[in-house]
Amino acid sequence: MIAGLDVGGSKTLGVVLDPGGAVRATVRVPTAGDGGDALLASTVRALADLATAVGLAPSELEAVGIGIPGVVNTDDGTVRHAVNLGVNGDPLALAAHLTETAGVSAVVENDVNAATAGAAAMLGDVTDLALLSIGTGVAAGLVLGGTLRRGHRGAAGEIGHVSLDPAGPPCVCGQRGCLEAVVSGPAIARRWPVDGATGAATALVAAAERSDPRAVQVLDEVAGYLAAAVVLLALTVDPDVILLGGGVAEAGSPLLAAVRSALGRRVGPVPLLGPLDLPRRVRLVPDTVPVGAVGAARLARERLSHATA
Amino acid sequence: MIAGLDVGGSKTLGVVLDPGGAVRATVRVPTAGDGGDALLASTVRALADLATAVGLAPSELEAVGIGIPGVVNTDDGTVRHAVNLGVNGDPLALAAHLTETAGVSAVVENDVNAATAGAAAMLGDVTDLALLSIGTGVAAGLVLGGTLRRGHRGAAGEIGHVSLDPAGPPCVCGQRGCLEAVVSGPAIARRWPVDGATGAATALVAAAERSDPRAVQVLDEVAGYLAAAVVLLALTVDPDVILLGGGVAEAGSPLLAAVRSALGRRVGPVPLLGPLDLPRRVRLVPDTVPVGAVGAARLARERLSHATA
Repeated sequence: MIAGLDVGGSKTLGVVLDPGGAVRATVRVPTAGDGGDALLASTVRALADLATAVGLAPSELEAVGIGIPGVVNTDDGTVRHAVNLGVNGDPLALAAHLTETAGVSAVVENDVNAATAGAAAMLGDVTDLALLSIGTGVAAGLVLGGTLRRGHRGAAGEIGHVSLDPAGPPCVCGQRGCLEAVVSGPAIARRWPVDGATGAATALVAAAERSDPRAVQVLDEVAGYLAAAVVLLALTVDPDVILLGGGVAEAGSPLLAAVRSALGRRVGPVPLLGPLDLPRRVRLVPDTVPVGAVGAARLARERLSHATA
Repeated sequence: MIAGLDVGGSKTLGVVLDPGGAVRATVRVPTAGDGGDALLASTVRALADLATAVGLAPSELEAVGIGIPGVVNTDDGTVRHAVNLGVNGDPLALAAHLTETAGVSAVVENDVNAATAGAAAMLGDVTDLALLSIGTGVAAGLVLGGTLRRGHRGAAGEIGHVSLDPAGPPCVCGQRGCLEAVVSGPAIARRWPVDGATGAATALVAAAERSDPRAVQVLDEVAGYLAAAVVLLALTVDPDVILLGGGVAEAGSPLLAAVRSALGRRVGPVPLLGPLDLPRRVRLVPDTVPVGAVGAARLARERLSHATA
């Protein structure tokens, strides 16, 4: 039995996978996002809950994989700059802490990479995909030919900070017109305010379905930028399938329809792009399992099997 | 002995590699670029010249690999849309023709992919690189973890048609502000006219070195867009090394210095990009061998060894 945790800004989702990869238990607990010590404690609690759910002690688990937003060092299992969790530039020794307190091997991975590995496992026959994660941040995870691509400096898939318009709005990164500055959850909430940043995309889509003219316009613009992101992925790594995931993608089918429509408008007049059949290659991330937690568990299993091989 | 040909718009470069991969002969012949039949004939002649140079008949070669600009079907060895060679949308059966007339197995590959494979072989210790080819067209070749990445529909690395500025100049592809519309040889020649499009970048760099103020300004702009292309490659595939190649890169060290300087200005204010150390990771493509011809030969050898394995 192996555990996976997806540590998000407000909640931590966990799964236990059996040796065949099937989900045997799931948990959902609040994340303590007010700094390193609280985060370590809430992660240990989530792991204990998971172990209890399958009648084991944490130390009886094969390992735990943890997906977390931030700059992860996969070699030593530390994380820095998990800004939404109150973790600053000092490395937080997440893997070492879990091993010490719970007696279990731990592997840490960036949350988008973990979700991409989990989505790839769910799709089964697809060995080549990108997961465009649209949430507080925007980034793509890449599984190319069955292998997670992290890049030479861990920057593979960081397309949230590709500037697509030098005259676009300023981005937190210091550039202008980055994807993240126009399609992230907070960017959508600025254009379509709701109570709390989460749910802005869902509210926007609902208003557009009621034919609110300003919602239709804002949704068209957001979908247009997401279409540009899909084209960007196609003209760089050209993965078989491009999945929309993250909090914004919880707006679901109507958002997907808007992105497909925007893609059609964008690629129609461009002979180079039309044959790429992009509208058909874009899908929503599977929502039947928590892909981030599943992927974290699978990556941990893969890493440990290499380590002992 | 295996042959490689790099079929360019004006010239075809050829090499013969021995079983150890060393270059045993090179040829350089004009390309007949006025349509399919003439192209087939000049390619057969180049192969015959190569075979003669090592004292063999073409049919005594292990195989020939051909790199050619256009849309290549690597499965059946046909090419379409080799626009600068007078080849239109009908598939030209290049591999089949060489096999029939010269009695040698033939493998066809896109020219940028072939050059990238050749550059990777030359660099030896680098297994992860992008070659940004800047010529009449603009595209990147990708060797990731030692494997050429073509993409699901052959579109991997086609960053020449990523639009980086919706208000930029129109591109032949139908979009605006594509990289190709601002940094290709013809795009530079429009800003810095010379006799013939080839050499515009070299002339521009020479004028900038003489402190011609307009040349300095145009070079800064071109280098700025090339810096954006480097950032784009880093934030998508994040290869270890990024090489500048193609006709424009024949402007050499002064162009590389301008790109490094533009990269420094661009990444300096962006905390995300600074640590990626991009100025150091950009180099010129090796010019000691014709990398396109070497890569075509190596890809042919690799393909045939898989076919017989």
